[in-house]
Amino acid sequence: MRITKTIEEVREAVAGARGAGKPIVLVPTMGFLHDGHLSLVRHGRARALEAGGADAPGACVVMSIFVNPTQFGPGEDFGEYPRDLDRDAALAREHGVDLLFAPAVREMYPEGFRTEVRVTELTEPMCGAGRPGHFDGVALVVTKLLNIVRPDWSVFGRKDAQQALVIRRLAADLDLPGRILVAPTVRDDDGVALSSRNAYLSAEEREAARALSRGLRAAARAWDGGERSREALLALVNAEIDREPLVRPEYVDLRSRDTLRDWNGEGPALLAVAARVGRTRLIDNVFLGGEEEQAGPVDRPGRTSGSA
Amino acid sequence: MRITKTIEEVREAVAGARGAGKPIVLVPTMGFLHDGHLSLVRHGRARALEAGGADAPGACVVMSIFVNPTQFGPGEDFGEYPRDLDRDAALAREHGVDLLFAPAVREMYPEGFRTEVRVTELTEPMCGAGRPGHFDGVALVVTKLLNIVRPDWSVFGRKDAQQALVIRRLAADLDLPGRILVAPTVRDDDGVALSSRNAYLSAEEREAARALSRGLRAAARAWDGGERSREALLALVNAEIDREPLVRPEYVDLRSRDTLRDWNGEGPALLAVAARVGRTRLIDNVFLGGEEEQAGPVDRPGRTSGSA
Repeated sequence: MRITKTIEEVREAVAGARGAGKPIVLVPTMGFLHDGHLSLVRHGRARALEAGGADAPGACVVMSIFVNPTQFGPGEDFGEYPRDLDRDAALAREHGVDLLFAPAVREMYPEGFRTEVRVTELTEPMCGAGRPGHFDGVALVVTKLLNIVRPDWSVFGRKDAQQALVIRRLAADLDLPGRILVAPTVRDDDGVALSSRNAYLSAEEREAARALSRGLRAAARAWDGGERSREALLALVNAEIDREPLVRPEYVDLRSRDTLRDWNGEGPALLAVAARVGRTRLIDNVFLGGEEEQAGPVDRPGRTSGSA
Repeated sequence: MRITKTIEEVREAVAGARGAGKPIVLVPTMGFLHDGHLSLVRHGRARALEAGGADAPGACVVMSIFVNPTQFGPGEDFGEYPRDLDRDAALAREHGVDLLFAPAVREMYPEGFRTEVRVTELTEPMCGAGRPGHFDGVALVVTKLLNIVRPDWSVFGRKDAQQALVIRRLAADLDLPGRILVAPTVRDDDGVALSSRNAYLSAEEREAARALSRGLRAAARAWDGGERSREALLALVNAEIDREPLVRPEYVDLRSRDTLRDWNGEGPALLAVAARVGRTRLIDNVFLGGEEEQAGPVDRPGRTSGSA
């Protein structure tokens, strides 16, 4: 695995792999890798190989590690966001990443940088309301990363369901290279969705954080049993959260899965939650209806899947 | 010459040329072609061939023709902007364009489109002040065109000096494909910078429009003679304009050539003017100092260059 720090280096390395006929897979991350990130690597590589056929050369998996300052608001945790490039590099290598791109902030946003990218509408509710400017920063860095690497596939996680929708919209609108894949949320054995920010949680907060997935699961079970009342579904999530004094919800919301408009009773829904657990902001969601239900725990190699 | 109307078609055609080892040159236009546009074709092809060396296969020149609605404000001339695709196609063919990309508005901005691109600071003075949102539309369509065609070179005209700076900034910031070339302004024998909007002018207005280039030339001569007073240089342009009752200036401005900050007496300057001539909005500019002085008329094949 090669580690690159500059745009020029990573472009050269990717051009070499592309020249050798390899499909290029990009896994954008902010580092401090967990099994969720590593599942994106597996997901992307599998999809690229499937598309290429058995005789195609193996995919070149590029992982970017960049704690992107433009997607953090004032007072958010940009400074404290956990970073450990040595550990990340070892994990990435172990999981078959071919090329790590870990640029400095000044490489991505040099002196004189003046461009903004914004997706409207999809970015207004949910995390967009609580984190003004967050999705502008995401749109900007993703535009850059996709133009730098020009992948055939980019892989994002479904835990950030709103982000995934924003990025699909962005990539379609700006004709960005390649296709966007969204891989299922990976959960720990206690049901908590994997997140680099889980590292902030004390043991007590970790226990409390389980209320999010527990509430979502309760609502998913009710949905599967035929419940279609918006109020009833939201109440099931809120009941779990209300039981935990350490958990302060920012939103619990039921939206149309593909448009993020208020769910009107038609089509698949996204049930999403953001909450502070102590000082840590966590998000989680489930899809209700539609083909790609991932409410429950997801199988991961080397782990027994199971809910708490 | 092939005419394509869809993003998929033009991408396929460009991929074919790229596969044959041809450098790709993009000339983005809004059509109603004049010699200024055609000089961009020559300029881009010459530069690509020079870079490729004598043994390289000829360049593939892609011209886009798209009257981009997002760069017109309410009350501007989007509806009346002159369009003649048949005439444009004949001219493009005659001048060696290989591929014409002439998409419909709905191809570029389909239902559900929600993305915005903005360059700040450079877009604030001059045309940015008089045409709010204009450069956002330019940035958006250029981002799309460069991602669709993925040219090795894109060619823009220096008449739109602020636009050229905005696009250079945009391309650098978003890591857009290829390099940006800016080709000299082409003028008619009477000194008027070529523009599709010149078609709007009556004979009397055309005569009055000469005041713009006349004023800029007077200032350039004064600069060459050592004049460095901002007020004196601007006064020379304003004097010519004030003599023409049909010409109402929107701005006459002297700015640092590369940053568009107020010119502080140091380094090369951009002297630029925008004015209404009758109902038609025209712009023109000269560089003062620096390497690339193009104040005078520019040689064009098949024409005697000469000032009015």
